[in-house]
Amino acid sequence: MDRDALKALIRQVIQDVQTPVIPIGISNRHIHLSQADYDHLFPHITLQRKKDLKQPGEFASEQFVTLVGPKNEITKVRLLGPLRKASQVEISMTDARTLGVNPPIVLSGHLETAVPITLKTEHAQLTLPCCIVAKRHIHVNAEDAPKLGVVDGETVAVRVGSEQRTTVFEDVMIRVSPSYVTEMHLDTDEANAAQVGNNTTATIIR
Amino acid sequence: MDRDALKALIRQVIQDVQTPVIPIGISNRHIHLSQADYDHLFPHITLQRKKDLKQPGEFASEQFVTLVGPKNEITKVRLLGPLRKASQVEISMTDARTLGVNPPIVLSGHLETAVPITLKTEHAQLTLPCCIVAKRHIHVNAEDAPKLGVVDGETVAVRVGSEQRTTVFEDVMIRVSPSYVTEMHLDTDEANAAQVGNNTTATIIR
Repeated sequence: MDRDALKALIRQVIQDVQTPVIPIGISNRHIHLSQADYDHLFPHITLQRKKDLKQPGEFASEQFVTLVGPKNEITKVRLLGPLRKASQVEISMTDARTLGVNPPIVLSGHLETAVPITLKTEHAQLTLPCCIVAKRHIHVNAEDAPKLGVVDGETVAVRVGSEQRTTVFEDVMIRVSPSYVTEMHLDTDEANAAQVGNNTTATIIR
Repeated sequence: MDRDALKALIRQVIQDVQTPVIPIGISNRHIHLSQADYDHLFPHITLQRKKDLKQPGEFASEQFVTLVGPKNEITKVRLLGPLRKASQVEISMTDARTLGVNPPIVLSGHLETAVPITLKTEHAQLTLPCCIVAKRHIHVNAEDAPKLGVVDGETVAVRVGSEQRTTVFEDVMIRVSPSYVTEMHLDTDEANAAQVGNNTTATIIR
């Protein structure tokens, strides 16, 4: 190896070492419910916490619903807590094809273009225009934002390294808050496409 | 916009226009069978061509099998023709999780590390170590190879542009043959992760 190639390699190693890595969280299909929709689907049943999620206050509950689309059903879709202002169903594009629906790719909470889906429990069912595919995003703790060199609302590219399916995800939205734990969220399609395990990390590239 | 920014933009547009685009083919889960395995699963039934595929000689048949894994079954998995030397099941990582199997990510035909899966029809069933997830690859017609600046066996990165999920796939293997039609193959996880439709195209980047 000549001197220039060696210098380039060392520079790359230093850059790799200095680039902060971001943990990845894989979001499986899930739902959020409003109090009114919860009471309808789970009458007189207490919302039960099963496991805390990484973002503070968020938890997986013991409750499930069945999603019913024009083509198929998907059973055992987990309800996340706490209850929210608006009900929301987050699925992958693979799920969307299974169900036969065509949801928009938007950030959580942006339900203006969400498509109708039917939620079913053993007690009741509801059809609501609340189905989306989550847009790629990174939750960034406010103290980490300057370290990562990012600001709220900006879009970045993230390189996710894996043994055989290294992938650069562009169009990743940065969300900064003092209450967030820094974590990139990918859905199951994205995670499988990039051969991501739960401990894989990612680096922001520009 | 200042003069330098404008020049950079124009350069980028020229580069985009000059870079050859590659059609993308989405591979849904499918199987290939050997003559012996076909005869076992479809006794005295003629292999029937339903639709030609883009690669010359390859076709979707009218025949289906059910895949049976430790966790679940997947029904209606299409058999592709013609029959091959060795049976092979190609699924997505999402399918692998559904079935409860852990197949390697390898190129078609590389079955040394393939995992066992059970194939079932109304007539018979077979358990064979033939289940893989396809490694990303591009079929390149020999005449197109110099235009794309690629050689057989090399690994490239491919940028797949979409409205909200632009993605760069690294680790994409180039396969060159005079008989290939130039086409990048992605599985359903990869296609969904990148918001690919059947008419989306891709460009090789390095």
